[in-house]
Amino acid sequence: MAKVAILGFGVVGSGVAEVLRRNGPHIDEKIHSAVELKYILDVRDFPNSPFAPYVVHDFAQIEGDPEVDIVVETIGGATIAREFTERALRAGKSVVTSNKELVAEHGYELMRLAQEHGASYLYEASVGGGIPIIRPLKQCLAANEITEICGILNGTTNYILTRMIRAGLPFGEALKEAQANGYAEQDPTADIEGHDACRKICILASLAFGRHVYPAQAPTEGISGVALADVAYAESCGRKIKLLGRAIRGTDGKVRAFVAPHLVDGENPLAGVEDVFNAITVKGNAIGDVMFYGRGAGKLPTASAVVADVMEAARSMDRPKYLDWGPGGEDVAVPPDDVASAWYVRAEASAEQVRAAFPDASFLARAGAPAGETAFLTAGTLTRPALDGKLTALTPRSVFRILTD
Amino acid sequence: MAKVAILGFGVVGSGVAEVLRRNGPHIDEKIHSAVELKYILDVRDFPNSPFAPYVVHDFAQIEGDPEVDIVVETIGGATIAREFTERALRAGKSVVTSNKELVAEHGYELMRLAQEHGASYLYEASVGGGIPIIRPLKQCLAANEITEICGILNGTTNYILTRMIRAGLPFGEALKEAQANGYAEQDPTADIEGHDACRKICILASLAFGRHVYPAQAPTEGISGVALADVAYAESCGRKIKLLGRAIRGTDGKVRAFVAPHLVDGENPLAGVEDVFNAITVKGNAIGDVMFYGRGAGKLPTASAVVADVMEAARSMDRPKYLDWGPGGEDVAVPPDDVASAWYVRAEASAEQVRAAFPDASFLARAGAPAGETAFLTAGTLTRPALDGKLTALTPRSVFRILTD
Repeated sequence: MAKVAILGFGVVGSGVAEVLRRNGPHIDEKIHSAVELKYILDVRDFPNSPFAPYVVHDFAQIEGDPEVDIVVETIGGATIAREFTERALRAGKSVVTSNKELVAEHGYELMRLAQEHGASYLYEASVGGGIPIIRPLKQCLAANEITEICGILNGTTNYILTRMIRAGLPFGEALKEAQANGYAEQDPTADIEGHDACRKICILASLAFGRHVYPAQAPTEGISGVALADVAYAESCGRKIKLLGRAIRGTDGKVRAFVAPHLVDGENPLAGVEDVFNAITVKGNAIGDVMFYGRGAGKLPTASAVVADVMEAARSMDRPKYLDWGPGGEDVAVPPDDVASAWYVRAEASAEQVRAAFPDASFLARAGAPAGETAFLTAGTLTRPALDGKLTALTPRSVFRILTD
Repeated sequence: MAKVAILGFGVVGSGVAEVLRRNGPHIDEKIHSAVELKYILDVRDFPNSPFAPYVVHDFAQIEGDPEVDIVVETIGGATIAREFTERALRAGKSVVTSNKELVAEHGYELMRLAQEHGASYLYEASVGGGIPIIRPLKQCLAANEITEICGILNGTTNYILTRMIRAGLPFGEALKEAQANGYAEQDPTADIEGHDACRKICILASLAFGRHVYPAQAPTEGISGVALADVAYAESCGRKIKLLGRAIRGTDGKVRAFVAPHLVDGENPLAGVEDVFNAITVKGNAIGDVMFYGRGAGKLPTASAVVADVMEAARSMDRPKYLDWGPGGEDVAVPPDDVASAWYVRAEASAEQVRAAFPDASFLARAGAPAGETAFLTAGTLTRPALDGKLTALTPRSVFRILTD
């Protein structure tokens, strides 16, 4: 019998309570023991909720209750969530989280703390919502040297880009629609500027390559600079614009992690990932490419990933699970400046100016292009600094990498 | 330190030896102990192979060597492979296999035997080649009631169908090309008649629904009846023909498992799975749909899945892992006769005859259709027996289900 406390009765927290109740008998049977909800911590009361009897307001009550084995942290952020996580781990309780910010910023220390106190710290739900990725990445691909991870990691931006591509909505309108549908928050900055995707690619990179990669080490560009013109040019060459989080291990052993809009070939499975879906591609030296695909967010998918971790923690109470990595450092990650790509450029320049700088460029066309707008693909691959050197005579408006296999 | 014996030095077995050697240091680091190859059992010698010193010819040598902890069975088939697997498990050695036939036919007994002797029996590589599916299905989706599994489970047939669709090759020529490229065996029966896909869907169904589903309980239709005419009609309505293995749990708790060609909507992610790739969709009550995608066969992808299991077995030698299920029986699975679908039918019949039987049918057209050929989609969904009742007046040539979400 494992007793569980949920911290934060928001979207994910209430989903966890619901999945525990709905699939309870099924869960008990699978782990051959019972998982029982004991507390829900929130500042609010929920008098009309069936979970009202579980609600408490003081974390000390959970911390001091030796019956609580597993704490589910669905508060979010890296302040109060961090404090409660540390206190729970110090009390020997395992912690299961969906909090990507906390894992991306402090995962290493929290995993160490868990280990010191014989507890598990599990975070399957922090990346890809309900898509199983953390455990497959660590366990099933363990026989591979992983060389690259590339994914559509944020459902909000993928929804906005899908609406721009399919309905021709400009960015601002697509964002408003996403907000109206509950896919984007009122302050959408963390999503549209790529911070959310950045945290997720850092978690995946840390796990795959074994050392903590911090969000500050991963240059991040969001989608607010993507114009309908770019969408049209991409379409004209059989590609789609997708916000990708990528992490590449170079031959020097260092990680290049970054988030940026990319042009993705229509034949690439990532191009077909639409709406709020996420997909993560993992490249290994034996396995080739494998892809994990599903709903990257949402109450029940995310909650089901949390509950799977709760079951794992319950099953292994006498032998905690470590899906951990080593310490970060300046030597772990470098900017992707030396990662060569073919590039898409839209510039305020004449075709002659472009040809002078890029003699082999492939020009793109779109209906309704204003005079003086030129868009092209570079012929070969080059690094960003090399590209920038050639762009000095032009006035670039959009510069995106092209994803190649 | 775990010592390993590989049974069968064929494509997968030699791949396992290669992955163990290539990624050896990496593997040691991950499981904090060494995995060392000790024997390779084969009837042949391999004097020019770097692995020649490991080759032995008598299984008793492996069986009787207490140093061997893990036996990798890559012999295939259900005769000698079964005998050696049983003997290894009885000797307390864990067994890792890529042998879908053996797992699909005798998995339950072998898992019981493993449990009785404190050993693991692991089979990640038996489905989906290198795609992690067995462990995610059991562990990560454990918080879900799984309702359906649907997948492109056989790379050979998917390659053939892709070539029919994209290059317009008739079935026989596409098969020859697959054989020339090494994607199909000289006797391609197990692939093209769907037996291979049937074994895999039975393994997934057994794991997901908890009771052994036997191949004999899963009606199986291959792709040898798929004509270019069907490909063209499917295309005319925005669909692709794919060989799907499906397992559905009905409200009565019983499993409907079957393999058959389906028309898949172009927007469905499964439609984009081409060539020898595999993809498996899992539907859960909390998670919605998740999909796992990658190379479903091939030496190194499959070997990497085997080696991941070897590592798992090595890591848990003092506490064997059970990814098991309960016994089968006549009550476990029923034929999919009550699974209603919309249907595609190509018949030797006039439009009038079709309209008489199916007043709301949607007629399809293709270039070059001979007189007297009529193809249509049913308007609503109906079961196969109900469909057959209406088809009596027509002469059906192809009858395929349409996959709906």
